[in-house]
Amino acid sequence: MTSINMTPQPTGAVGVDHPMQDAVDRVVGSIRFTIDHEVGGMAHARVIRSPFPHARLTGIDVKGALALPGVLAVLTGEDIVGDERIPNPCFGVARRDQWPLAVGKVRYAGDPVALVVADTERHADAAAIAVRVDYDELPYVVDAAEAAREGAPVIHEEWPRNECGSWALHHGDVEEGFAQADRIVESVYTSPSANPVPLEPHVAVAQWNDQLLQVWSSTQWPSIVRRELAHMFGLAEHLVEVRTYPLGGGFGAKGQVKIEPLVASAARIVGVPVRLELDRDEVFLTVAKHPATIRVKSGVKRDGTFVARDMELVYAAGAYAVTSPSGTGNALVRAPGPYRIPNIRITSQAYYTNTVPGGSFRGAFTNQVAFAYESHVDEIASELGMDPMMLRMKNLLRDGDTYATGEAMHDVHFEELVVNVAEGIGWDEAQPPMAPGRLRAKGLAVILKSTPTPSRSEARVEIGGDGHVTVYSSAVDMGQGASSTLAQLAAEFLGVRYADVRVVDPDTSTTPFDTMTAGSRTTFSSGSAIRQACAALIEAIGELGADQLGLSPAELAHDEGHVVAAMDGSHRRSYGEVIVAAGLSSLSREGVFQSESGGAFKDPLDVKGMASIHWHQGAAAVEIEVDIETGRVIVLRCHGASWAGRIVNPTRVRQQNEGNIIFGIGPALFEQLEMESGQVINPNMSDYMIPSILDVPEHMTSTALVSSEADAELHGVGEMTIPAVAPAIANAVFRATGVRIRDLPLTAERVLRGLRSVEGKDR
Amino acid sequence: MTSINMTPQPTGAVGVDHPMQDAVDRVVGSIRFTIDHEVGGMAHARVIRSPFPHARLTGIDVKGALALPGVLAVLTGEDIVGDERIPNPCFGVARRDQWPLAVGKVRYAGDPVALVVADTERHADAAAIAVRVDYDELPYVVDAAEAAREGAPVIHEEWPRNECGSWALHHGDVEEGFAQADRIVESVYTSPSANPVPLEPHVAVAQWNDQLLQVWSSTQWPSIVRRELAHMFGLAEHLVEVRTYPLGGGFGAKGQVKIEPLVASAARIVGVPVRLELDRDEVFLTVAKHPATIRVKSGVKRDGTFVARDMELVYAAGAYAVTSPSGTGNALVRAPGPYRIPNIRITSQAYYTNTVPGGSFRGAFTNQVAFAYESHVDEIASELGMDPMMLRMKNLLRDGDTYATGEAMHDVHFEELVVNVAEGIGWDEAQPPMAPGRLRAKGLAVILKSTPTPSRSEARVEIGGDGHVTVYSSAVDMGQGASSTLAQLAAEFLGVRYADVRVVDPDTSTTPFDTMTAGSRTTFSSGSAIRQACAALIEAIGELGADQLGLSPAELAHDEGHVVAAMDGSHRRSYGEVIVAAGLSSLSREGVFQSESGGAFKDPLDVKGMASIHWHQGAAAVEIEVDIETGRVIVLRCHGASWAGRIVNPTRVRQQNEGNIIFGIGPALFEQLEMESGQVINPNMSDYMIPSILDVPEHMTSTALVSSEADAELHGVGEMTIPAVAPAIANAVFRATGVRIRDLPLTAERVLRGLRSVEGKDR
Repeated sequence: MTSINMTPQPTGAVGVDHPMQDAVDRVVGSIRFTIDHEVGGMAHARVIRSPFPHARLTGIDVKGALALPGVLAVLTGEDIVGDERIPNPCFGVARRDQWPLAVGKVRYAGDPVALVVADTERHADAAAIAVRVDYDELPYVVDAAEAAREGAPVIHEEWPRNECGSWALHHGDVEEGFAQADRIVESVYTSPSANPVPLEPHVAVAQWNDQLLQVWSSTQWPSIVRRELAHMFGLAEHLVEVRTYPLGGGFGAKGQVKIEPLVASAARIVGVPVRLELDRDEVFLTVAKHPATIRVKSGVKRDGTFVARDMELVYAAGAYAVTSPSGTGNALVRAPGPYRIPNIRITSQAYYTNTVPGGSFRGAFTNQVAFAYESHVDEIASELGMDPMMLRMKNLLRDGDTYATGEAMHDVHFEELVVNVAEGIGWDEAQPPMAPGRLRAKGLAVILKSTPTPSRSEARVEIGGDGHVTVYSSAVDMGQGASSTLAQLAAEFLGVRYADVRVVDPDTSTTPFDTMTAGSRTTFSSGSAIRQACAALIEAIGELGADQLGLSPAELAHDEGHVVAAMDGSHRRSYGEVIVAAGLSSLSREGVFQSESGGAFKDPLDVKGMASIHWHQGAAAVEIEVDIETGRVIVLRCHGASWAGRIVNPTRVRQQNEGNIIFGIGPALFEQLEMESGQVINPNMSDYMIPSILDVPEHMTSTALVSSEADAELHGVGEMTIPAVAPAIANAVFRATGVRIRDLPLTAERVLRGLRSVEGKDR
Repeated sequence: MTSINMTPQPTGAVGVDHPMQDAVDRVVGSIRFTIDHEVGGMAHARVIRSPFPHARLTGIDVKGALALPGVLAVLTGEDIVGDERIPNPCFGVARRDQWPLAVGKVRYAGDPVALVVADTERHADAAAIAVRVDYDELPYVVDAAEAAREGAPVIHEEWPRNECGSWALHHGDVEEGFAQADRIVESVYTSPSANPVPLEPHVAVAQWNDQLLQVWSSTQWPSIVRRELAHMFGLAEHLVEVRTYPLGGGFGAKGQVKIEPLVASAARIVGVPVRLELDRDEVFLTVAKHPATIRVKSGVKRDGTFVARDMELVYAAGAYAVTSPSGTGNALVRAPGPYRIPNIRITSQAYYTNTVPGGSFRGAFTNQVAFAYESHVDEIASELGMDPMMLRMKNLLRDGDTYATGEAMHDVHFEELVVNVAEGIGWDEAQPPMAPGRLRAKGLAVILKSTPTPSRSEARVEIGGDGHVTVYSSAVDMGQGASSTLAQLAAEFLGVRYADVRVVDPDTSTTPFDTMTAGSRTTFSSGSAIRQACAALIEAIGELGADQLGLSPAELAHDEGHVVAAMDGSHRRSYGEVIVAAGLSSLSREGVFQSESGGAFKDPLDVKGMASIHWHQGAAAVEIEVDIETGRVIVLRCHGASWAGRIVNPTRVRQQNEGNIIFGIGPALFEQLEMESGQVINPNMSDYMIPSILDVPEHMTSTALVSSEADAELHGVGEMTIPAVAPAIANAVFRATGVRIRDLPLTAERVLRGLRSVEGKDR
């Protein structure tokens, strides 16, 4: 991305704590979410789901349900597959392997089997109980390694080895590297399944005209939902309109395509608008963090220099591919971590399993590898008797270093981040006296994260005759303040006031394409598209203005939403006046940001080259206490830091980093989907725990490192600090107790078990 | 309007019977209207209306209503006026003289006095009955002439003479004209109040965020509704979004601003979204055709040459101005009719009356004058013993003639129209034998009609990377097929297929300004804006394409949505491909059509100059039968004709003309709002009659006259033939019976009374 020189002077719209566009609505409760959306004459749906992880469907009896009050229809997979208006019933962003309702067999406990459509939610609920489904149970597999074995149950006939993503990377000569090493350190780390837990569940409303499909969905990917629905129904994309309200949280759960195909199919078949809102238990059965087993073997010199690494990443994809085939590639390029390692070999694989389909989860495909490689660094430090911070400083990537993909790294700030987080928790401070029965220590971690590449963001920016600016973008505001951030950027790029800019909600019929709101990409990607659109607008207004004022373009300057004579500031005319004088009532221009990967992902088994338009960089440090009697870990202090380039809104950056810390602590200490007999047994907010206010560290601080250069890139902050939290805690637990826990979460039980085993051995 | 030379060759999108965009939805019932719109958490409203035509409000007791189940609020005018969030509670497109709810006094029987807002319509209805309103009755006036008298009840204190529009026109020397005349003919014609009767009643839903107001309304004027609401609430216009679905009929009823201020105020005050759907009786109490009394005095030569005319137009405005102040000016410039009259004097006046506010009605402000001047022409013919068709042919305007406003007329086709409609009903055919007790005759009329000038239409046309075209326009489809017509035009102007174009519904947040969908202006005005946008798009694509193909712009040609090498048609690349190759996913351009009146309306008392960007021209001829025993008039044959310039869709033109005939017969024969004691006594579809299928002439035909020139203007057809129907029937009745009825409608009672009086005199 080259920087575009803007004629207007910055007005201070960026770097300032402007309130969110919808701040008052959020506070007083007048903000509307998709869950509030109704359309005239809509029916309500309820999903019937398989209780079995793997079974053949032998019969669905809908008669009893159909006889109940208010029931309009009970649909099965056969109804959808058999409908000629749904020529391509399978969907999926990487592989189209998923039916809106199961056909022939179910692949996980939770797989949608039938759908009741009724006049009210109550009637739909009542009828759902009356649907009788007969199953023939099949052998099932929930573990990725088992799924990979010869003879494992086959989940999709098209993929007899259950293969769902396979990538490899070779850099340098890993055998030679190990041969040069003084020490070899090898460990296996695991992360469990988990749920992103947005407060608003998945909800969608679909209605059809003759050919036009309108869908309101709580989705992070409106443009891709449109693409998939258009494919499904054999429609041109412009005949599908996908609209979003601000999301009541996403955290990855609402990425890709989820319930929209089912809701749109039901509306098509039943002939009325259909609304489906998932219950909380269904959210747990709709998307999961990929369980991962990651083996890391390192060769190091006595002085701590990393010389070789061999990694094996194995993910359970769940019952459907979703993003696993490509996500395992993203995991691969992130797996080396922010280190200079001359000889690397990594393989990354996912296998279909009879579990909840894997999807995005708060720093998707980074958390698992970061927990592994950052725990591993501390294991090496322990092995070598080095300070883990010093070991990092010795090996962290610096500008110009070659990354494992062969890319020469630039704009690299890992050392600053480590120093920052270490200072943030007083790494070198003397340990204060511990309370009796408590052990206390500090830990830190630093990570890198690619951003979805290739990906695309478009924007249209319009100035009205009244001077007001409207930004059309399909970036989704899911509480992170994307709309407000993009409004600040547009104000800055145009040199107008923030209050004069409004960013509209995504509506694919009027807001242009955006790959996704995910992967910490929006500020950078949509911001770049907006910058381009604003530059074109300024140029167009400059031309009109110069013409109107009888000046040459060179004699014209821009000043806070006005054109003026450059020499003396005379001839002042507002942009709105220029537009009106030109006989227009508004003027708009488009901007496009397209990131290219440089072909890194061209050959899955030989990943090489630039894999990310920008490498996000984050770090976290914690001070923790362990209760010796219970094993409970308490995070006393946490400091997160990320590289932001330039900050749009300081308060939102702080809030984002604090959110990262809190939602990083959850999977570190207790979040996990628990399973028995192939079923999730804790799909509710009583048994599945997310951090409460009591889990928030008493001292929670954060820093966004910025460049002092005026034209620094706007990288955004996104989820950069989340992945660092779990390994920082695990490292602190080790430093406090000598217990190295390699399996997330670090539950009290695991810590206590570790303490006892250490006692048995050492004490 | 200069014609723009388009590079692409026409693809035959225009002049072809393409089906309406939403044809299937209209047939199967899946089309959605505003009446179907719901928003989450919306409340329902019911209006309490004054039973008195003029009264002081002395007290409103809402306690009883507030105690009823589900009632959220009962609002009065004071609640609205007293709310600081509604700084400008009065609205009105010509004068802001109307409150959402009456303040201090009521001005007509039907004036909204209070509003119940409840959780359901049923609860709102029940509570509305419990609201107690105390009135002090005031003297009232329902007749315009009486309202104009000294000492008449004053309806608005600001207008002590009840003045609500006053215009005058002088052309030539009218006294000198009369002095030259061989005969003077003078008559007075009246038209009653009537209702446009759209099938869908007025309905609106409003919801607020912190500052953003969203309104869905069944309106023909979304851009102006936005303007008025923005003014009312002291908001910038972009903070008000007005959206329309296709209308279930408009016919003028849904012009201007109607229930939107009330609904938006209620939603603001109560703090929940509010929906209001009027009952049928309330539609009758919301808008009315202006009752008119029109005196016409003509001086003619013995050979039929018109030499002088003096006209006095007096309209009852009703209780609020709405468009009367400007509409009376439009009436004035249309009053001379399509004739060459060298000396003319016209005055046009409206007065406030304690009746339903006047508004647009199927050919607003043309029907009343056309009934007068076309009846009058036949009276002159009778006086002179001339054939009324020949008399017209002698005096009709021809190209280059000077109109009463001083404008030199061009593109004039009145003679062709008269010949066409005469032929259409066999004007010169020998009269077949009449049934016993029946009298039969033919009659005709020809009219001219200005189109709203000045007015403005904007459009944005977008081509996507898939080649699909989207047209953004605020023109409202109210069953006339505006969207489909504009889609055909865009296809033609871009040289692409009709199926590849979609015109979206108005949404002021994304569709640009349009003054109104009214006055038969849309095809011409929005079509011109679209033409300009398409020309700009073609130019932009041509530049990109030439660049991509390595050709100079001169070497490039356009062919059915592709750029090609002009020489040999090689290098073929679709517009979508050009756009994608340029790194864009879509490309859009704006177009603006602004009609200027040439200052005709600058001095209301001396109207002079061009008053219409284009003069619509229509004619109708009928053959009727009169039942001597009952006085009933039966229209046996009707042929309508209009000047279309060039036809976009032949079937829709025919349907439009047939609709004109049917909705012209209604006010001619039976439509009128009947009043007693200042109250409308027939506000329902049993007592107020619109034409049924039995009233449709057995022989109903129409012609749209067109130019053979390829670049003929697209004038549209609109309501051009409606105003000619009533005078054609009145003229036929006279020719059949010798009874000249000068008061609409020509009810059986009036005809019978006439027959008896003629009998008394002549038989």
